[in-house]
Amino acid sequence: MRAFYYPELPESASELTIDGEAFNHLKVVRLKVGEQLLLLDGNGGSCMSELISLEKKFAVVKTGPKSVQEASKKLDLAIGLVKKDALDLCLKMAVELDVGRIYLVESQFAQRYDINLERVQRLLIQALEQSNARWLPQVAVATLEQVVDNAKNYQHMLVMGMSTGKAPNELDILEGHCLGVIGPEGGFSPEEELLLSKQANALATHLPTPILRTPTALAALAGVIFTKLRLFH
Amino acid sequence: MRAFYYPELPESASELTIDGEAFNHLKVVRLKVGEQLLLLDGNGGSCMSELISLEKKFAVVKTGPKSVQEASKKLDLAIGLVKKDALDLCLKMAVELDVGRIYLVESQFAQRYDINLERVQRLLIQALEQSNARWLPQVAVATLEQVVDNAKNYQHMLVMGMSTGKAPNELDILEGHCLGVIGPEGGFSPEEELLLSKQANALATHLPTPILRTPTALAALAGVIFTKLRLFH
Repeated sequence: MRAFYYPELPESASELTIDGEAFNHLKVVRLKVGEQLLLLDGNGGSCMSELISLEKKFAVVKTGPKSVQEASKKLDLAIGLVKKDALDLCLKMAVELDVGRIYLVESQFAQRYDINLERVQRLLIQALEQSNARWLPQVAVATLEQVVDNAKNYQHMLVMGMSTGKAPNELDILEGHCLGVIGPEGGFSPEEELLLSKQANALATHLPTPILRTPTALAALAGVIFTKLRLFH
Repeated sequence: MRAFYYPELPESASELTIDGEAFNHLKVVRLKVGEQLLLLDGNGGSCMSELISLEKKFAVVKTGPKSVQEASKKLDLAIGLVKKDALDLCLKMAVELDVGRIYLVESQFAQRYDINLERVQRLLIQALEQSNARWLPQVAVATLEQVVDNAKNYQHMLVMGMSTGKAPNELDILEGHCLGVIGPEGGFSPEEELLLSKQANALATHLPTPILRTPTALAALAGVIFTKLRLFH
């Protein structure tokens, strides 16, 4: 079933008039009257709905009651700024992996460019609609120092590919809210690694692989963290 | 350091003349005389080398002794055929993740098109050069029945997102050579899931996420398997 982003879902069953961008999207995918659709507000809420009328400039949708999924609070990510196509991929993957918050990190070896946060938001919404995700991640640009300051709020900070610092014991089970940290292409500088490794909750994570590009590292690290959190079944 | 694919590496230190495609590649990246480069044969072999002369139609490289890395034999993948751009991404990721063999599976909900194996090979070589991988995966097109026949050769077959069948115990440690199986967009059909779940070594793997696209599922599953194999440090 097709999913559509609709940020202001009614609490109870009702009829919604959809116009503007959401309406254009309905038309592009050629949704037909009588078809079911899923409305998602990116804030945990979703409504099973039905298209009941399709006019020239708007559509009318009958929604069921809103159901709300709590934020999972298992995984946030800090990602070194990589080239735009790799960053786009990272953002989409983060939505699919139910990441709560994404810090885009201006680290030493990171790419330098101005992040267009509106474009980022559009990309996240596309990924939300494709993956039927219930939550849009929150995105913030941050320095590595700011990430380290925030790292205190997590039970564990797993740094991908870090060459210094404590590694998670192979038998360790993790608990709580994790922050996954992935460097840009070229990784973190020695000073940055030192800063990260000094944090009490830092764990270095190395996989037995050649050099991973950032998007691959991101999804693989999520797999590691979900396994360590015993979050699959 | 730049890496270049060179399939026939000499056993001991020597001088190599490089022409044809490999030479064009050297020119494109503007490698300079005196610079170090890494030659990779895609078959476990690598040579640290130095560019000693750059002519109009060829280059001469002084190679050090060949070192050989054994095939890791930890992870092979079976991937349902997805659209070409997603498949390209899956192939690149598989090289980065040191996958030994890739079965491209013509399953029920898979995309239908003829695989251009020459193009696939070029893509794998690019990924090898980018990730400094030592091994090119072997790629074969297969039916799901063929994959199941081959699955006997693995200690474990982990099927991503499968709704039936035994799941890995959250505390289980895996050992040996694993086959990761990832369906196309839309997953496997009920009959296909039944066939997979009936295999003695099959384990269903669900992550606590929305719908994953195939490339994301692939890298996340690799992370799960490496963790379960205790293969990180």
